[in-house]
Amino acid sequence: MASQFFDRHSDLLNQATTAIRQRGYWSAFPEMPSPKAYGETANTDGKLAFEAHHNKSFDLDQPGNTGQTGKEVSPFGIDLAIRYSQSDLNVLFPAIHEAAQAWRNAGPEAWVGVALESLVRLNKRSFEIAYSVMHTTGQAFMMAFQAGAPHAQERALEAVAYAWAEMSAVPRTAYWEKPQGKNEPLKMEKRYRVMPRGIALVIGCSTFPTWNSYPGLFAGLATGNAVVVKPHPGAILPLAITVQVIREVLQDAGFDPNVVTLIAHNADDDTAQALCLRPDIKVIDFTGSSKNGDWIENNALQAKVYTEKAGVNQIIVDSTDDFKGMVRNIAFSLALYSGQMCTAPQNIYILQAGIDTAEGHLSFDEVASAIGHGIEKLLSDTDRAVEVLGAIQNDATLNRIEQARGLGSVVVESKALTHPLFPDATVQTPILLKVDANEEDKFAREHFGPISFVVATKDTAHSIELSKRIAMEHGAMTISVYSTDSKVLRQVEDAAAEAGISLSCNLTGGVFVNQSAAYSDFHGTGANPAANTTLSDTSFVTGRFYVTQSRVHI
Amino acid sequence: MASQFFDRHSDLLNQATTAIRQRGYWSAFPEMPSPKAYGETANTDGKLAFEAHHNKSFDLDQPGNTGQTGKEVSPFGIDLAIRYSQSDLNVLFPAIHEAAQAWRNAGPEAWVGVALESLVRLNKRSFEIAYSVMHTTGQAFMMAFQAGAPHAQERALEAVAYAWAEMSAVPRTAYWEKPQGKNEPLKMEKRYRVMPRGIALVIGCSTFPTWNSYPGLFAGLATGNAVVVKPHPGAILPLAITVQVIREVLQDAGFDPNVVTLIAHNADDDTAQALCLRPDIKVIDFTGSSKNGDWIENNALQAKVYTEKAGVNQIIVDSTDDFKGMVRNIAFSLALYSGQMCTAPQNIYILQAGIDTAEGHLSFDEVASAIGHGIEKLLSDTDRAVEVLGAIQNDATLNRIEQARGLGSVVVESKALTHPLFPDATVQTPILLKVDANEEDKFAREHFGPISFVVATKDTAHSIELSKRIAMEHGAMTISVYSTDSKVLRQVEDAAAEAGISLSCNLTGGVFVNQSAAYSDFHGTGANPAANTTLSDTSFVTGRFYVTQSRVHI
Repeated sequence: MASQFFDRHSDLLNQATTAIRQRGYWSAFPEMPSPKAYGETANTDGKLAFEAHHNKSFDLDQPGNTGQTGKEVSPFGIDLAIRYSQSDLNVLFPAIHEAAQAWRNAGPEAWVGVALESLVRLNKRSFEIAYSVMHTTGQAFMMAFQAGAPHAQERALEAVAYAWAEMSAVPRTAYWEKPQGKNEPLKMEKRYRVMPRGIALVIGCSTFPTWNSYPGLFAGLATGNAVVVKPHPGAILPLAITVQVIREVLQDAGFDPNVVTLIAHNADDDTAQALCLRPDIKVIDFTGSSKNGDWIENNALQAKVYTEKAGVNQIIVDSTDDFKGMVRNIAFSLALYSGQMCTAPQNIYILQAGIDTAEGHLSFDEVASAIGHGIEKLLSDTDRAVEVLGAIQNDATLNRIEQARGLGSVVVESKALTHPLFPDATVQTPILLKVDANEEDKFAREHFGPISFVVATKDTAHSIELSKRIAMEHGAMTISVYSTDSKVLRQVEDAAAEAGISLSCNLTGGVFVNQSAAYSDFHGTGANPAANTTLSDTSFVTGRFYVTQSRVHI
Repeated sequence: MASQFFDRHSDLLNQATTAIRQRGYWSAFPEMPSPKAYGETANTDGKLAFEAHHNKSFDLDQPGNTGQTGKEVSPFGIDLAIRYSQSDLNVLFPAIHEAAQAWRNAGPEAWVGVALESLVRLNKRSFEIAYSVMHTTGQAFMMAFQAGAPHAQERALEAVAYAWAEMSAVPRTAYWEKPQGKNEPLKMEKRYRVMPRGIALVIGCSTFPTWNSYPGLFAGLATGNAVVVKPHPGAILPLAITVQVIREVLQDAGFDPNVVTLIAHNADDDTAQALCLRPDIKVIDFTGSSKNGDWIENNALQAKVYTEKAGVNQIIVDSTDDFKGMVRNIAFSLALYSGQMCTAPQNIYILQAGIDTAEGHLSFDEVASAIGHGIEKLLSDTDRAVEVLGAIQNDATLNRIEQARGLGSVVVESKALTHPLFPDATVQTPILLKVDANEEDKFAREHFGPISFVVATKDTAHSIELSKRIAMEHGAMTISVYSTDSKVLRQVEDAAAEAGISLSCNLTGGVFVNQSAAYSDFHGTGANPAANTTLSDTSFVTGRFYVTQSRVHI
């Protein structure tokens, strides 16, 4: 059955494998939540399916259940009241090891077949997952749908494609014939076998529970590992549904479903640390804080560890021939999901002496104010604003906004908005602060959430030096530059390359620095403190398996 | 010039890149030290070149020289008395960083071109390197030539081929066009750049200074890193010559030679640890003891670390239809370079009740004695024996033989031989001891050198269980099995796969378990404590570089 899944989806796999090499635009799963793509009743059905989980036990039929956990409350104000089983690890892990054996021996086609079938089935549940993501993360519906469902599925498929490319590059057998001068040659048959590292652990975050977890989850699964999924206690449901779907596919393929398991736990207990230090956990994928990610990197030395942590994303404003486009683009980037994206910009470097634009020279304050007005204009209509901002995921982010107020003179104040549909939602517009480049203690660290700084720099060389140094010391996922000078663009490109940051140049239209496209944009480089890995590339998959060989004379 | 080197060697690169995918037999550099392959005077010239180094300063013209070091004494009894500069790291490293900049920006063709030209030039100096390897490691000449020169060059070329395959799989540019329904599509050009991690450190060992160091050295160089080579204080010369050749090629290609530097130091100082902990060292390749390797893995957390450490290699004897062939093969494997290979077998598991052979059932003692006699026969002629055994590299190995004597009843005693050409050489035949399977404290750890055990096991299942467990707990590079039962072979293959050990089946002819062939045999799996990496595969190269991108609307 698993090989039937592989055969059924071989076109999909081939297209994805081609896409990661060409890196142009390609998509397997429709990103628009339209009836045409997903069916007339898909939205209603998905919403009902989501609501059907409320106030119930979410049962995955895993061994070793002990009591229940689950305190998810939607940032839009709904108490989900879903109860998940807690696990006795001393019962669950033996069952995982048991399940892992037949899975390990099934080989790459079976692993990839199950992964692909799971993704196709997950795509069919995109609306249910979208509502689950929305009501755990606070993302507005459109983002929850796109980033939470099809885009997450694309990133998963991308990782599966990398895994397949690397596993299939190792031949199953080889004939080796070594000449021996006048004597008979030495002849051997060699057999190569791809083996999973062991058990993989995926640690999810509260803001992108699927998008950030799927690459590791599917890369681990597609390379034959058993995978333990540990969601953030605030965003369990999207991963619980995901695990449920994969367990169904595993069973349909004749495997023990305990190849993939969910470990839900109470906030602030030591489940994550205990899992990370288990000797049988050989691979860890983590998304979350630098503190926790660094701890895993420094302590889980038995495992291959892939982390995405905090960073300080930056924008260099040197000059522009489309000032309005620039302002619109920056404002949207700051407001989108209230800056709760690992790719959202935080620091905007603007020359103290102002910048040249098609409309003439503008002073620092004029540029800063324009960005501030851009934010206000974008969010002037509350109905529209909440669809951009979403809601604040947790109180820590709310507190950070409060604390940020003292850090500089306020260009735009953060305001609470009342969501027209969800009156209890925590909606808050971005705050923009003005600081000087020498106040590094204020802006050279991540303020996660809708908090940004316009920073006055001496000149563009200064902006480049500052952004590069901050990225190398504190990490950064993205950088963006506005300049009409090709020399400046080259300098920023060189600096970004050295600091390991993805660069976007002169974004004034429908692409935003926060967004990265599967198969085309590498998300992270692993070369600065923001992440030790890339979603996805070859190095993201090669640590998840090893190859053994056997040779015999013939 | 660097791109000229790339063009000049493009056929070589293409053939190597094909070879790593097909994994059949292929060779770029002649392994026989014959006049036909290397020229009529190559041997004499190489010997003279080697001798010309004696009693001299080996000058690499690196900055920051402070005093001299070098106490290499040939295990064959010659005091080399070569003096190498010691380095003031506070002067040397700034020069390396300076050199690294233009090198980093030169790009994959330049990096690979310099690596390939270096290998071709190193091949021309194979005899000089062979004598240098012989008189630092104690390898007999034929092994010093083959493993030290052409085979090391092949392993380097293999690593360069993997590096090139991965770097060239990332396109330089991509065109991305995303449909927007009825609106104009979004159009972007994306540029991707391969960037080296930083400075790579290669730590050599005393027994295979070139073979074990070349893969990391050339993988690091071919991915654009500056490379610091730190040889074992007992085997500096082969790597000093290597660094000299690469520095010449770098200069010819217009680069600062400090891209590749040698750091020679006194035995037992803290140079290795100090280098490993430098924040600017981003990649470390290490071959040596488990103690040092584990320390690096646990402490050099700023770097990607590739280690090959100690292991316990094993042979399972179940049954055979070529008893004499088996005995000859095992005896040679034990004697070759006096067991001073990371792939040499140590434990031979034989059924307590004896084994079935084509000549009938043989008791445990009969099998053990036959292997003992096989060793004695192989080494009965001293002229021939010394060409198999070579010399003992250092006193620690000699002491281990002494200490091993108390561990079991002696099947064959270790004897000192007098080398006909080098009367001061330390030549010692292997010791073979008989122990019971329950005496694990004696044989379940590495006794590096010519020390082996015949271990009486209950049955073959017991042999398999024991060998698998020891490999998983203490590490192992190789395992070998003799059986006429295909079911047993499959069982061992499964166990070896799980324990991450390379398996050889029924070796009775001219291939030995100690040997691994470039492009075909994976050396190590990284899946047990003997090594955390493989020479070479994709995962061996992907951690050495990262990819950054830049995107702009068009």
